[in-house]
Amino acid sequence: MGEKAYTLVLVRHGESTWNDENRFTGWADVPLSEAGKKEAVASGKELAAQGYTFDLAYTSLLKRAINTLWSVLEETDLMWIPVKRSWRLNERHYGALQGLNKQQTVEKHGKEQVLVWRRSYDIPPPELDEASEHYPGNDPRYKDVEKALLPKTESLKTTEARFLVEWEQNIVPDIKSGKKVLIVAHGNTLRALVKHLDGISENEITGLNIPTGVPLVYDLDADLRPVPHKDAMAPLQGRYLGDQEAIKGRILGVANQTK
Amino acid sequence: MGEKAYTLVLVRHGESTWNDENRFTGWADVPLSEAGKKEAVASGKELAAQGYTFDLAYTSLLKRAINTLWSVLEETDLMWIPVKRSWRLNERHYGALQGLNKQQTVEKHGKEQVLVWRRSYDIPPPELDEASEHYPGNDPRYKDVEKALLPKTESLKTTEARFLVEWEQNIVPDIKSGKKVLIVAHGNTLRALVKHLDGISENEITGLNIPTGVPLVYDLDADLRPVPHKDAMAPLQGRYLGDQEAIKGRILGVANQTK
Repeated sequence: MGEKAYTLVLVRHGESTWNDENRFTGWADVPLSEAGKKEAVASGKELAAQGYTFDLAYTSLLKRAINTLWSVLEETDLMWIPVKRSWRLNERHYGALQGLNKQQTVEKHGKEQVLVWRRSYDIPPPELDEASEHYPGNDPRYKDVEKALLPKTESLKTTEARFLVEWEQNIVPDIKSGKKVLIVAHGNTLRALVKHLDGISENEITGLNIPTGVPLVYDLDADLRPVPHKDAMAPLQGRYLGDQEAIKGRILGVANQTK
Repeated sequence: MGEKAYTLVLVRHGESTWNDENRFTGWADVPLSEAGKKEAVASGKELAAQGYTFDLAYTSLLKRAINTLWSVLEETDLMWIPVKRSWRLNERHYGALQGLNKQQTVEKHGKEQVLVWRRSYDIPPPELDEASEHYPGNDPRYKDVEKALLPKTESLKTTEARFLVEWEQNIVPDIKSGKKVLIVAHGNTLRALVKHLDGISENEITGLNIPTGVPLVYDLDADLRPVPHKDAMAPLQGRYLGDQEAIKGRILGVANQTK
């Protein structure tokens, strides 16, 4: 492990209106809830208070992430930095479950099956039909994406694979060029990234929860390996900014959401 | 003149807090006023109501334009489209006058001189000093711009020249590739563009006022020459969206601001 060469900041978007309604969201483009908007502003204020600045931001094509990013840019007075939007940063696609209520899905398919879809590393939910409104091929925002790449469902494993293409092809070169990069994305694309950075196992990553609206800061060496921080929260080598006890409580809260 | 091949939409940002205070703004990065935020949302609602959609947006590095764009993207549900920010879309740089009160400037330099700076085509205000906080070379957002290109003052003529570089190099190719382009910019960069599109003379352009927060729509032929619209407001061949009488009133209001 080398010396600290770069800083990378990750933010998971604030709570959406479907978190609130307990529905499977995936690529459905639902807005932030009022609570989620406040989380987004708070994460920006925390970054501004601690003096963070950025040269470039990455986000997904989904408004809950974009709106969270906008709040961070407003609070840090960095609205002018370039923003790269990519479908590869989108949340995991939830296949035929998208839009369904989680409780009703449990009643229909059984708790065990739903837990497998939610918490296994490589078992995706059922595919959705190409006629579905949730099929990305029917959405103009994906019209420039090669159709074979557009998912009909995803596991965490396949989400990781397509996210890491963006990471290797675009984000890594930007970081290595000396740009301070901010990534505002989703629970599962950020899981994919911390799994990659921290070398977390397939078993452990499915149980790891990244709280919404809390900046997660990595110090990286010249080869982009994390330099462990004294305030790192295992198994992560990065640190969350803010009240550490409150953040631990929020991580547990996210974990309990499935129960 | 050929048949309509493309549509281009321009929006001038809403009123800023310094419009309100009657100060020379230029590249000073002042936010929208409350009235300006409402104008921005209204322009987005108008575009949404009339069914406009975009593949790509251009804006400046100044938050009053960026925030206006964000409101339009929210109202048209197009937050996911790529946004290209460029310093070449910034407002005209007002040189040593930036930040000064317009009335005080009149008292100091005389009404005639101030009118010359405000309304001549090619006479810029005095240059600012490189030590000034208003000198772009001291602002991190311009650190990647070649220093010789950064203005210490600008006339409408020099503003036009640097804007047209962006137009020819980037915007024209995007339009000709079939992308529906939205430009959210400033009074003088939009003047430069309509002068170019409509062939307006140097004399006439300095008296032409583009109202804030009103979408201005051009139908363009395959060579990007305007196809005059029946609702065009001379000398423009494009049309403003919304209540035509109210818009005429606002154009006169902008014209009277200097008196």
